[in-house]
This record gives sequence, C-alpha cells and structure tokens, in this order.
Amino acid sequence: MPTDPSLTPFFNPQGVVIIGASHDPSKLGYGLANNLIRSNYQGAVHFVNIKGGELLGRPIYTNVLEVPNPVDLAAVLIPAPFVADALRQCGQRGIQAAIIGSGGFREVGPEGAKLEEEILQVARQYRIRLIGPNCIGLLDTHLPIDTTFLPPPGPTPGDVAFISHSGAICAAVIDWARGQGYGLSRLLSLGNQADVSETDMLAPVAADPYTRVLALYLEGVKDGRRFIDEARQVVRDKPIIALKVGRFKSGQRAVASHTGALAGQESAYNAAFRRAGVLRAETSEEMFDQARALAWCPPTKGRRVAVLTNAGGPGVTAADALESLGLELSEFSGRTRTALGEILPPAASLLNPVDMLASATPDQFAESLRIVLADPGVDNVMIIFPTPPMFTAGSVAKAIIPVIHSADKPVVVAVMGERLIQEAVEHLRAAQVPEYRFAERAAAALAALVARAELLEYAQAEPLMPVQTSEVFALHFERSKETKTSEVFSLLKAYGIPTAKMELAQSPDEAAAFARQMGTPVALKIASPEISHKSDVGGVLLSLGDEAAVRTGYEEILQRARSAQPQADIQGVYVQRMIPSGQEVIIGAVQDAQFGAQVMFGSGGTEVEGLKDIAFGLAPLTQIEAERMLESTWAGRKLKGFRNLPAADRDAVLEILIRLAQLAADHPDLDEIEINPLRVLPNGQGAVAVDVRIQAAGCP
Amino acid sequence: MPTDPSLTPFFNPQGVVIIGASHDPSKLGYGLANNLIRSNYQGAVHFVNIKGGELLGRPIYTNVLEVPNPVDLAAVLIPAPFVADALRQCGQRGIQAAIIGSGGFREVGPEGAKLEEEILQVARQYRIRLIGPNCIGLLDTHLPIDTTFLPPPGPTPGDVAFISHSGAICAAVIDWARGQGYGLSRLLSLGNQADVSETDMLAPVAADPYTRVLALYLEGVKDGRRFIDEARQVVRDKPIIALKVGRFKSGQRAVASHTGALAGQESAYNAAFRRAGVLRAETSEEMFDQARALAWCPPTKGRRVAVLTNAGGPGVTAADALESLGLELSEFSGRTRTALGEILPPAASLLNPVDMLASATPDQFAESLRIVLADPGVDNVMIIFPTPPMFTAGSVAKAIIPVIHSADKPVVVAVMGERLIQEAVEHLRAAQVPEYRFAERAAAALAALVARAELLEYAQAEPLMPVQTSEVFALHFERSKETKTSEVFSLLKAYGIPTAKMELAQSPDEAAAFARQMGTPVALKIASPEISHKSDVGGVLLSLGDEAAVRTGYEEILQRARSAQPQADIQGVYVQRMIPSGQEVIIGAVQDAQFGAQVMFGSGGTEVEGLKDIAFGLAPLTQIEAERMLESTWAGRKLKGFRNLPAADRDAVLEILIRLAQLAADHPDLDEIEINPLRVLPNGQGAVAVDVRIQAAGCP
Repeated sequence: MPTDPSLTPFFNPQGVVIIGASHDPSKLGYGLANNLIRSNYQGAVHFVNIKGGELLGRPIYTNVLEVPNPVDLAAVLIPAPFVADALRQCGQRGIQAAIIGSGGFREVGPEGAKLEEEILQVARQYRIRLIGPNCIGLLDTHLPIDTTFLPPPGPTPGDVAFISHSGAICAAVIDWARGQGYGLSRLLSLGNQADVSETDMLAPVAADPYTRVLALYLEGVKDGRRFIDEARQVVRDKPIIALKVGRFKSGQRAVASHTGALAGQESAYNAAFRRAGVLRAETSEEMFDQARALAWCPPTKGRRVAVLTNAGGPGVTAADALESLGLELSEFSGRTRTALGEILPPAASLLNPVDMLASATPDQFAESLRIVLADPGVDNVMIIFPTPPMFTAGSVAKAIIPVIHSADKPVVVAVMGERLIQEAVEHLRAAQVPEYRFAERAAAALAALVARAELLEYAQAEPLMPVQTSEVFALHFERSKETKTSEVFSLLKAYGIPTAKMELAQSPDEAAAFARQMGTPVALKIASPEISHKSDVGGVLLSLGDEAAVRTGYEEILQRARSAQPQADIQGVYVQRMIPSGQEVIIGAVQDAQFGAQVMFGSGGTEVEGLKDIAFGLAPLTQIEAERMLESTWAGRKLKGFRNLPAADRDAVLEILIRLAQLAADHPDLDEIEINPLRVLPNGQGAVAVDVRIQAAGCP
Repeated sequence: MPTDPSLTPFFNPQGVVIIGASHDPSKLGYGLANNLIRSNYQGAVHFVNIKGGELLGRPIYTNVLEVPNPVDLAAVLIPAPFVADALRQCGQRGIQAAIIGSGGFREVGPEGAKLEEEILQVARQYRIRLIGPNCIGLLDTHLPIDTTFLPPPGPTPGDVAFISHSGAICAAVIDWARGQGYGLSRLLSLGNQADVSETDMLAPVAADPYTRVLALYLEGVKDGRRFIDEARQVVRDKPIIALKVGRFKSGQRAVASHTGALAGQESAYNAAFRRAGVLRAETSEEMFDQARALAWCPPTKGRRVAVLTNAGGPGVTAADALESLGLELSEFSGRTRTALGEILPPAASLLNPVDMLASATPDQFAESLRIVLADPGVDNVMIIFPTPPMFTAGSVAKAIIPVIHSADKPVVVAVMGERLIQEAVEHLRAAQVPEYRFAERAAAALAALVARAELLEYAQAEPLMPVQTSEVFALHFERSKETKTSEVFSLLKAYGIPTAKMELAQSPDEAAAFARQMGTPVALKIASPEISHKSDVGGVLLSLGDEAAVRTGYEEILQRARSAQPQADIQGVYVQRMIPSGQEVIIGAVQDAQFGAQVMFGSGGTEVEGLKDIAFGLAPLTQIEAERMLESTWAGRKLKGFRNLPAADRDAVLEILIRLAQLAADHPDLDEIEINPLRVLPNGQGAVAVDVRIQAAGCP
C-alpha cells in the first residue's frame, strides 16, 4: 500500500541533525549523539548546540541554519520553551521532519499544553511532520539508524517492528528482546502524538521489507475508524498484534438502555481489532511470544496439532494447554502410526501426544517430526521436551531444525528447563524457530497463528449495507427529550425491521378502539419518555383479550405509573397487537466515542445485564461478524433449536441485526437504540421488534 | 500434625544402600551413586551390585545382606524382573523403606503390572514402604540428601518443596528453579505409586522446617477424600499450590440429568481443592511464580494494592493486570498524598499508580514505598520499573530491600527488562523478594496471596450436616430402573426439603379426584421411568383449573407420550398442585469417582446446559462454599432481587442446598439427583422442589 511521502525522512533520512547534542555523558543529548554514531547510520550526521564546540570528532554548530547539506531530519532534545524556535529554524532550513524527544509539554499540564500547541502551529506553518514531543525516538536496525537516547546496547536486527505509546516500555522491550533472543526491525516511540499518530505509522512501518510483523503498545487510538481502515490494509500482508492497556478506565456516562450499560470502551476495542484483523495480546510477554511465531512460522491451515515429546508429563501438559486454547489434538492416520511404530520402541505411545520415551535419540525426534508433518490431519506441531537423560538438548535441536525449515506447517518448540538447555535455545533462535520454556506459552503461540488465519477473513470481509439510505426519509430527533415512539417505529420500518404495530391512546375509549382495529389480544404500555424501564413500575399489561379489559387496563397502568413516578410526564398508553410467542433476543446499538456505533446481540428480557449472554460487533456489520455474534452467545446458538425448543428464524435475526447496524452507522446522533425483545418466530416466519428504546444525542 | 513414622527413613535415613550402583558413567546407577556422594549426605552410604568391586572409593557389596549397619533406606535401580528378590533381601536385612527407580512395571503394560503386583506383595510381607517404581527419586537440600539419578547440578537449598507424579517435570523444575533463582527444600518423584502416594507425603514433607510452601504436580489423586483431609490439615500452616493436569480427559459416562451432563472431573477437582484449601495453578510457570510469593511474603490482609512506578506505561499495565485478576487499586489517604508530594517532583502522579517519574532516585523509591506501606488503605504493594535512565536498577533494588524486609505487608517487584537488570534481580533474589519481569506475573503472585488468605477460611470451615441420618428411613433403590417418584419425594421430605405434593393417577377419574383433594390449579406429568425429559415429549400440562380440564389433560398427555415413545413403559400420570410463581433455580448432585458427591446450583429450566450459569461444590457443603455457589451465579445473585424482580427466599435456598448436599453425601449409591426447578417463593415463604429426577447406582 502507498505510504505518505512526508513520513519517509523518519526512517530513511539523507542527513540527521541533533539539536541539543551534548558533551556531557550524563545528558540525554550525549546519549542520542552517541547512539546515532554507534548505529552505523550511513547518511550525514550533524550536531547543534548553542554552546558550539566539537563532539565525537565532529563540529557542533550553534544554529541549525548553519548545518550543511544533506539534512532532512531533526532530532530535538532541548528544553521545551526553546523547541518552537528551533523548529522554526528547521523550517527555514528546509527540514520537514522532526523527532521531539524533549518532555515538558502536554504531559505536565496546561502550561506544557500551550507549548505543544505552539510547536504544532510552527510545524503546520512550515509543513514539518513531528514525532513526539516527549518520546524516546526511533530506530531501524537494518538501515541502520538509531535516534533514541536509550542507554546501549540497542536491539539486534530482527523482523518484529514495535510501535509504542509508552517510552518506558520501549526501553524494556529492547532489553527483553535481547534477553529472549529475538531481534527488532524498527522501534518507534510516539510520545504525545502532537502530529504523527500510531495510525499514520502503520503503513510506513509495514512497508519495510525486513519487518514481518508489527507489535503495538497502545494506550488508545486517536481516530478509531481511520485506524481500522489502515490496519485492515496492512494485515493482509503482515500481521499486527496489539497490546491495548488502560482496560479498566471505562467511561461512566449516563445510559438509558441495557446496551448502553453493557457496552464499553473494551467491547469497542475488541470489535474494532477484530474488524481490522488485528490480534489482541493480553500481556506484553504474550505479545512478543506470539510476534515471534507470527514472524517465523508459515501460515497455518487449521487448528489440529500433533505433539511430540519424550516424556508423559510434558505431553499431558501440552495437551491441556492446547485444548484450553481451543486447539485440537490431531488424530493420526494408520499410516502415521505404522511409520512411528517402525522407528520407536514398543512401549512408546503412538497416539497423539506421541511419547517417544526418555530414550529418544535426536534422530528419532527428527524422523518422528517428519512423519507427523506428513500426516494430512496435522496442521501444526508442538515439540516439547526436557533435556533427555542420554543426549543434550542441543543435539535434539540440531536434529529437528532442518526438518522444521523444510516444513510448510508451523512447528513450535517447548524446551523445558533453563540452564541445561541454553545450547538448544541458541540453535533454535539462530534458526528462527519459535522456542519457549513452557508448554502453555508454546500453545499460545500456535493459537495466535490460528487466530491470525481467522482474522485474515475478518480483514477481507466488507461491511453489509443492505438499505439504500437515500430511500430512508430524514428523521429529526428532538434534542431535548426522548424521540417519539412513533418516529422510532417509522425509522425501523424504513430500515426494513418489522415492528409490532403500536398506537398511542390518550383515553380508555381510544385504547379500546385501537384494540378493535388491530385485533386482540393486545398489550398496553405506559407512554412516558421519563420512564425507561416500563415493566419496573408496572407500566406494562399483556394479553388483554377484549375491549373491556383494555379499558380497565388503561386506568390501572396509568395509576401505577403515577404512583411510581409522580413527576413523570405521561403522554398516554401505547396499544400494541400481541405477537405470537417465540424465542426472544435483544439487539441494540450504542455510539462509541472512538469507533462509532457498536452493535449488541444476546439474551434479552429484564435480566440481560445480570446474565451477560451478549456479544458486540462494530457497525456496519460484516456477515462473518454477525455470524460470530450469534454463535458466541447462547441466545444465538439456541435459535437453531435446543431440546424441546423449536428452531427459530435465525436468518431473519441475522438480517435484522445487519440492518440495525446500518441504521446505527447511518445515524451517529442516535446515542442508543435497543430492541428488547426482538421476538423470533418459527423458521421462515421472521422476527418482530416488540419494544424499542431510543436515546438521541443531547438527551439529558 | 503427626506424620507416619514408617515414612521417616525416606527423608532422614541413618544409612542408604544403592542397589544397582554402577561404575559406568553412562548408567543411571552411576548417576545415583555420584549424586548421593556429592549431596554431602552425612549418613552411611553403601553400594550393592552383583558384580562387586569398588566405586568412588567405597566397596561394592554383591548382596544387600552383606551391607553393614547403619542402613534403613534402599535405592533400587536394577532391571524390573530382579527387583522383587532385591526387596525380599532388604526385608531380611531389616530395611523397611525403598525407592524403586527402575522402570518396566505398570507403565509398560500387563507384564509389568504383574511385576509391580509382586514387589508390592513382598513389600507388604516385610512391611517395607515403597516409593515408585518408575520414579526419579527424592532429595532434600537441607539435610542434605540426593537419591535421584538426574544429571547434576541439583537445586540450590530453598523453601519450596515439590512433589510430582511426573519424573520428567522434576528434571525441568530443578533447571527452571536454578535459572529463575529460587531454591527447593525437597523434591519427590512418586512414579507409579505402587505404595506411597501424593497424599501420604503431604504431612511428612510439610513437617520439614525448611519447607514454607508445597508445590504439587498431579495427574490425579488416588483417594480423593483422604487427600482433602490431609491437605486441609497441612494448609493451616503451609500453603499448598497444585498443578493438576489431564484436564481434558473427562469421562464419557451416560447421564440422565442436567447435573450429570454438566458435572465433570474438573469441577470435582476444583471443588475438592477449594474444600482442602489448596491453590490451583493453571500453568507450571504460574505455580512456581506464586510459590515464591507464598514462601517469602507475609500473609496479606486484603485485595487493595498500591502501585509504585517511575513511568506511565508500566503503571497502566500494572493497574490492568491487577484489576483483571480481581484485585483493587488502593485509594490513598490525604496524609499519604501529602507525604508523597513532599518528596516527589510536582509533575509526579500522587494518585495510585504513583508515577514518581523517570528521574526517581533510589531514595525516592524507598521513601515512597515506606509512605504507601504506612497507609491503612494499602494491603499490598507492587513496584514496577524499567531501568531508570539515571540510575542502575540494582541501586533501586538495594534501596527498597530493607523497606520490604521491615514491612508486614506483601511487596512484589516487577523489574522490566532482562540483561540490564541482572544486578537488581540478583539482589532481590538473595533477599527473598519475589521479582518478575512482567506486571502480569507480579499481579498474579499477589492474587495468589489473596487467594491463599481466602482459602484458609475454606480449610477452617466444617461441613454442615443438619439432618440426623438416624432419623432418615432407609430407602432401597431398585437397581434395574428409575426409582419410584414417590420414594424420591419421601427421601426429600426426610431431609427436610419441601416438595410439591404429587400423586400417581392411573385413570382420568383418579386424576380428577386427586385434583379435588389437593386443590386446583394442578399440573399433570407423564409417569414413566423411561421418559427423562418429560416436557420434550409434551408430557407436561400446567395450570389445569378444574376437574374437567384434568380429565381431558390426562388423555391428551398419555396420547402424546405414547406417540413420542411407543416403547416406553407408562405407569400413569402424576398430579401435582401448582406452586405460586417465584424465581426458579436448579440444584442437583452427582457422584464423582474420586471425590464422592458434587453438588450443583444455578439457572434451571430446560436451557441449563446451554446457559451454563452454574456452580459446583463438594458434598457435604460448608456454609462458605454454599454462599460462594450462590454468589458466583446469576441465578444466585438475583435471589436478592433485581429491577422489578422481587427478592426471593435466599436463606431457604441455602438451607435446601446444604440439605441436598448431605442427602447426596449420605447416599453414595445415588448416582444423580436433580431438583429442577426449585421454585423460590418471596422472602420468608421458603422454596419448593417442583420436579425431581433421580438415578440410582446400577441403573441402565
């Protein structure tokens, strides 16, 4: 995919000027200069410091205007109040890319925020792209270039790119990576993101041929929908795995519906990542464990795993770990079992996990691996072994590496132990074979490969918009109170969502007349924008079979509502034809500040918030996401029928879910909409929105 | 607690004889001899090998009978067919404890099983206690003694004891422990457990003064109830943490109830571990991460945690990790905030997590730690930091260690990185401060301390048996078919569980007569032992208001059942008075082969298996466990009322649950019993078993 040319200088500058380069080894300005020189960067390197002088054998200019060509990237590490002027000079010098490492901006309060606003204005004036401020910088191990001020050593060259909202995490990641034996291709600390955001950098970083997988540490995203669009493009070629932190700071806004109460930032991020095809890691450790497997393994074709081991305990541990992550143990073909039987001792277990026994030789490891890889029922292999009593773990590693390299299926290795297995670990790392100390982490790496394959489908899927919006009449929400129910029903009708006919009666007689018109039995519901949960106040009466019952019911319901909420503005009583019985589900949508409308599906009724049998997706929905929402809830699974519960019209539910999603996507000023219940009739007979609740933007 | 004196020689022998000691360094018999000598064991060491000779400067006797005093423990490593004879000679020589390392017994098939049976007989004849066969042996780093044949080096002395069903895991654990910087007090590989089991060894290992925590790798337990009894005793003094593997090999027996379908070996193990006060680890890594914290930290008083850091990202990561494990971030007192403000720079965050900023000095770390530890709202502290830019991680470690040592609250440390932080790690390890590389693992360690505090309550709780069993009349189940429903209702009545009165009618007239007697409305249910899910076949009719309806209903129900299951033996139709409406729950019990009766509580109805809103406990129940079962399900939580759902008689449910648990515990031949629904009436009005299903031992 094309990348923004204004971002090119960051990773491939012709010349770099360090503004704030320092002689003093205890200063970050020294560290930055030192790193850039040590990185073996092949372009021009210039230093600027108002004090002038010389540093690392080069002159220090007192002003960026004096710096000779070539220079197209500035790395700025001077006190915050002086940054704007320095940037202005960069602009005058024709430098259009700057990394502002300096702190003292938005992160320290309103004073700093003003300074940040100022540098952004300068940047706009001179069309300078900014990374930072308050960031650690960036590096590319292959170009190479290092504009960070982190204490050396930097990372070894590798194929995982890391983009981070936290500078402190960058420092730790470089150290973890060295210790755990994997390299990084690029590392980028974004700081306050005054200009360049995580989303801007996805395509440029993915364009690097050395980068095979992108790992992101996110505290949020700046523009949710753009993030999804960019990420969706990237993941078609290269996997993205993200750790999104700040999970528990959910907003506390007032909500009027179950959907509003249950939806949150977390459900939105999960839906957004799925939509974008981005893997979500739960922990930092997991992110890099899985990034290695994503970078080094061929794509997997499925979730069936063969386990090879030299001991019973590790085999059981591996099987547990795999199954708890939703992977499956392969069933071997007769041919595989026969072939294994020919090379293994009689007491070996030829079923999966294959226990080759403690006596297993390196050759038996290699040959058994070749045999299980050849089985068409095997999609992936996990090899797990403690140091064999008679051989070194290193000799096993050396024997299996060529087989792993020639395989077109993922193989991960769990070498159990720590000090006795160092030789094995080093061979495996050098050969780019993902290796772990524990079965559970190896299993999680395989699970990430399977998830990656499934997410590719998500990233390919296009959202469904079955309704021509030009045909939808404009609906103007009153900003001061709940939208009139009749309007809501019209809106649903316009989107092809069947509703129970409903009329507002303002007297017992009128209610009886409506009932006569629409046919009994009918239901009565109190009409008041201020009573959200009508059944809580006794404001609902069902199955009224004749006009007399409707008249009495009208009075009764009015009286109950008045005594429960004397202040409420009561507009009358809705009369609605009763729908035949069927399964009931809830569907709703709520706007997320970051990603737009989220859609919810699940078990409805009054207990939805307690039961939490619900799933979220991002509007508009794709077919695969709508299907997932149904299948991941009991409410959705039982639409196919269960025991004496007959099958219901599942297709109608899918259709209505997709249409509601489009409605929510088309109406961003519609804060919340909820159909509860959606009554699902028997197969082929459709589904009907029985009750609808709506909250438009600006409502109290 | 007293320990079995016959097991004393295993960990504290006067003299050890190695039967099968070998000159050949490639043989395990050499490794064992070498380990025992190298271990610096202070008792007598003797070697036996039929070939005789000398080894490591000692004579090799050709027969154990020749071995001089003192000798009270044999370690046997000769081929399986010769073990029985060697054991016999041990018996004759007066040795009453033997570790059989040799393989070739039950694990290789029926031939080996015969040999194992034989050695067990010899052992019984001479009152010899056996560990193994097919085990790696055992070691004690403090005595010291090492009777394993694992390649050196062995573990460093420490305070975690490890008992394992897998030998291969022992080898890996020793290596992990060395690499991760913790020591072991004892290690014990149990092998085939022909005689001594994991349960036998709990008390003897816990009696070791150097052991502070017991870690178990279990593939099962031999005698579930005895395991619980022994473990409950041990955990009052010393925590036990167990990794139980083989989670996914659940039995596939035929079941007749929802409870039977939902209960499994896993739910039984979970309930049993809770009952015994044993922590359950999910992974090997987690087990030892947490074992260290359990060994080294003072007990915690609660779940509130203060987080200290020098950077924003790690603070957020820590907060996420803590909250996702159910821990809480402390709210600091004004005094704490003031004190922190006095020593930290103005831009520091004084809320929790405390961000001391990248400039934080070792003294600021130490002083801030002292301040938050003094806050009464802080139960635990997590310190998380990447290497500070201006100081070494080691200097931070040195500064905080004295504060941690003087604290009576747990403090765990996450030092982020790998190679740059080695000095810090070594200081912390030497000081017995639990340290981790990642926030998530440090948080899990604190969660284990909290779980330990809660499990102590479980281990103290005594089961409730409110019913005098002598008052319960004997009930004889027919072995060939479902127990008569009237008997079941009598049984429930005997245990004080209220039921809906129910009579078996064999004609429409008789049904009508019963209805007149008990009062309408009534329900009719088909009476057939072969129709388990009566409503599936239309075998249930509700709310019949008069005798005429009962007569028609009788015919109707009979006809439906006959057409659905023409072969079923139909005994008539049950007539039952309808119970007033109320919340409905399911309670049931099912026998587990290992642990006896498990009790289930949850959301009932026909959808119980789909909804899975259920919890299990071990019968008989303790009060705390019954409370937990209610609170961990939506069905239980909503008994307190929710929205327009009125509060129901929660106390009655607790009482009935406890009574049903006793019933199940008293009747091990009762395979399954299930009340579905238990109708729960409004507060103070009790609860009634509306329908009951039962399956007795031996039923088809």
